[in-house]
Amino acid sequence: MKTLPNFLVERVRLTPNRVAVVKPNDEQCTFKELYDDVFQHAGRLSAIGISKGSHVAVLMSNSYEMIVTVHALHLIGAVIILMNTRLSQQEWEYQLEDSDTSYLLTNLRSDRFKNVKVYSFEELQTVTPNSFDIQKTVRSEDVATMMYTSGTTGAPKAVIQTYGNHWSSAIASMLNLGFKEDDAWLICLPMFHVGGLSTLYKSAIYGMKVVLVEKAEAQSIAKAVQTHQVTILSVVSKVLTDLVTLYTRKEYTHSLRCVLIGGGPAPLPLLKNSMEIKLPVYQTYGMTETCSQIVTLAPEYMLSKVGSAGTALYTCELKVLNQDKMASPNEIGEIVVKGPNVSKGYYKRESSSFNDGWLYTGDMGYVDEDGFLFVVDRRSDLIISGGENIYPAEIEEVLVAHKNVLEVGVTGKDDVKWGKVPVAFVVLHKNTTVSKEELQQFCKEKLASYKVPKEIYFVESLPRNAANKLLRRKLLELQPGEEK
Amino acid sequence: MKTLPNFLVERVRLTPNRVAVVKPNDEQCTFKELYDDVFQHAGRLSAIGISKGSHVAVLMSNSYEMIVTVHALHLIGAVIILMNTRLSQQEWEYQLEDSDTSYLLTNLRSDRFKNVKVYSFEELQTVTPNSFDIQKTVRSEDVATMMYTSGTTGAPKAVIQTYGNHWSSAIASMLNLGFKEDDAWLICLPMFHVGGLSTLYKSAIYGMKVVLVEKAEAQSIAKAVQTHQVTILSVVSKVLTDLVTLYTRKEYTHSLRCVLIGGGPAPLPLLKNSMEIKLPVYQTYGMTETCSQIVTLAPEYMLSKVGSAGTALYTCELKVLNQDKMASPNEIGEIVVKGPNVSKGYYKRESSSFNDGWLYTGDMGYVDEDGFLFVVDRRSDLIISGGENIYPAEIEEVLVAHKNVLEVGVTGKDDVKWGKVPVAFVVLHKNTTVSKEELQQFCKEKLASYKVPKEIYFVESLPRNAANKLLRRKLLELQPGEEK
Repeated sequence: MKTLPNFLVERVRLTPNRVAVVKPNDEQCTFKELYDDVFQHAGRLSAIGISKGSHVAVLMSNSYEMIVTVHALHLIGAVIILMNTRLSQQEWEYQLEDSDTSYLLTNLRSDRFKNVKVYSFEELQTVTPNSFDIQKTVRSEDVATMMYTSGTTGAPKAVIQTYGNHWSSAIASMLNLGFKEDDAWLICLPMFHVGGLSTLYKSAIYGMKVVLVEKAEAQSIAKAVQTHQVTILSVVSKVLTDLVTLYTRKEYTHSLRCVLIGGGPAPLPLLKNSMEIKLPVYQTYGMTETCSQIVTLAPEYMLSKVGSAGTALYTCELKVLNQDKMASPNEIGEIVVKGPNVSKGYYKRESSSFNDGWLYTGDMGYVDEDGFLFVVDRRSDLIISGGENIYPAEIEEVLVAHKNVLEVGVTGKDDVKWGKVPVAFVVLHKNTTVSKEELQQFCKEKLASYKVPKEIYFVESLPRNAANKLLRRKLLELQPGEEK
Repeated sequence: MKTLPNFLVERVRLTPNRVAVVKPNDEQCTFKELYDDVFQHAGRLSAIGISKGSHVAVLMSNSYEMIVTVHALHLIGAVIILMNTRLSQQEWEYQLEDSDTSYLLTNLRSDRFKNVKVYSFEELQTVTPNSFDIQKTVRSEDVATMMYTSGTTGAPKAVIQTYGNHWSSAIASMLNLGFKEDDAWLICLPMFHVGGLSTLYKSAIYGMKVVLVEKAEAQSIAKAVQTHQVTILSVVSKVLTDLVTLYTRKEYTHSLRCVLIGGGPAPLPLLKNSMEIKLPVYQTYGMTETCSQIVTLAPEYMLSKVGSAGTALYTCELKVLNQDKMASPNEIGEIVVKGPNVSKGYYKRESSSFNDGWLYTGDMGYVDEDGFLFVVDRRSDLIISGGENIYPAEIEEVLVAHKNVLEVGVTGKDDVKWGKVPVAFVVLHKNTTVSKEELQQFCKEKLASYKVPKEIYFVESLPRNAANKLLRRKLLELQPGEEK
């Protein structure tokens, strides 16, 4: 389809009285009530100068206010830059400048940015709404949102997500999971990531209730699931582990028909424990560039294909390439995907990751003889820590700027609590010295705290290949006590 | 989306082992088994010379063979002309020629056509399959099917239906009705009409079981509903009336969550009786040009908006025009619709019915203050008789060719059994005479028997307006005993 309706406007026309959102305080609002708030807020955003095509950053934690803000910006036709609330000031500044953003809307803080107009949700309440043109229809290829991600080298870049991408993602997911009128999807992933944000669009497109929670931890989630008869949930594996414990202990009951788990391969014991308590876990695979899931395990294979991320969704394609050739069944290679939900690229940047509609993910995996994908490892340089993506290149760039540091390699190390944590291997300039703590402090000023290396090892040289390329996967062998 | 996957190929990739079809003899086959049959059959069709872009007519009654034939033609990339099995030889010949068709596939008869190659399903079984290029992807705008319909004047014309039209129709319907994995849709509308055919596409797109019945009458349907736990059904109002009787008498139980009823406004008492036995009836409005439903009543309004056809589906638009101006709420005017499921026009014919993406339906209705459509009457010249569309112009064209007939007007008259039946008002040339029976016989040679006027009245002149245009709605006043 070349044009699409505004997802919320279209939903309100059809089923205004269905519940749209359950707020963390258990208050419910219908699509009509949500729309009324959105319309008012859009009027205020128009009054402060935001118009069609404006680049507007949203720096908000999950909340009803964030939902209103996102829909209001779409109603005006602005391009939304979703910013991770856990980043450092310097990282935010970089994203604002790189994305040509002129407004920042936040429910966190409101006076710390230069070159952009900053408004808190609260202070906007006092603004008198302006009249504005409602963007009832958009072109599929129009940019809806942008989110930052990092590559193997260089600075973070903004992934362009169009209205067509979000629409196709919602439809492909529906063709896999189905939809019942009494479905309710609990949002516990942050909405500044596509995993959380996409649920908002699904809510409007399907006419589905979404449930917000105060805290994204098992106890709050289990309570909300029980109270609001939640049927669908997407979580990271740490939260699922805790949830399984609660349900095994029978502290809560659940109405869940689908628990989506992404962000790296889920451990087999966790999947088996989930099955024992009738928690239907769907392993999925997706990323910012695919606007949420692109590969998901269909219900009928939950048992026979435990551990697989499934097959490409309806309308999506998947292949595994080994040295540019199609891999044989069970042969590991790079995962390459295609589909109407796949981003058309990065903002203002060429990238070899996008080629003829195909996205070269850099992740490794294989497809079995039945066509099911098994993700062996996310791209070697990606560290997934508590559901957040950490890119070594970013941390390396910061550390190498320290006057005593000659070169540095960063990689992920297993961690019981977070899955992985970043650790750094540093080569110092000759005859200089610096402490681990000093370097960590140096990072803290420039990076989100979860990106600060938990360990720093001083080494004499870094492992490199013939072309002098850093071999990150060999870094851990340099740890004291590890064999080379 | 600019491209779409072949609906069946994509489904087999995802859920090969789900049940696809329950045959009239209660035998089931999975999507994989269906695909195997389709692939074999496509090889045979390729062997007889059918290739991508071939125009191939299908003249078949509802059957597993027809399902295989339709999917096989899509696998090759042929354009399918669906022909009504109830038409006369002369009408078929017209459609074959008009649509530039070179092959006709049938399970009825196989030796009566000129200028096209005719094959029965049975004789194709002896053909050795050829290899062919599977059309795994198509462009959304590619023509998938054509079906004949008539306008207010002139000959029948082929409605062009693209893959994008069929896809969008299936998605819009799903966003209204939802989809559960255990849904099963019973096909009792003929698949040569879009109401029946569209269920086939939904089956492949959703991964949904469809159930065929030997006869499209209440007893067979009720039996199949009970045996195969059917959840969705689309019927014409005559069949619904009989079904309601069976369920009221408790002769059968049902698992139906949705009964779609189209083809003109449903009588209020029928809707109320249905509600009493918990038969969730959804009144819908659609036509060949909209690739099945475009307006449907959402479940939550079943009670409060009894008699309404509902609101335009998600992604579709609706307006009512009175003398080219937007009608006020409750003001009757012409129903005008738009959406990605709306045909781009007629084959080889310009038409003023299509304008800037909007389809001027010629049907009359109004939208109430809440935006709900009430269809007052299908276009004044359309006669819906037992679910079949009859166009007066077609019958008039036949009758006026009789040597003794000067002019003729045809309209529909209420009928207990069929809803409406066609009746003709004939002005003879001066000093000539002909009997009613002779004229009916004259029609029978050229028209499907359901189109032959049940009554023929000889009158002195026809009602016309100032521009000399025939006023069909005034014809019934000319009946003996009616006041002028």
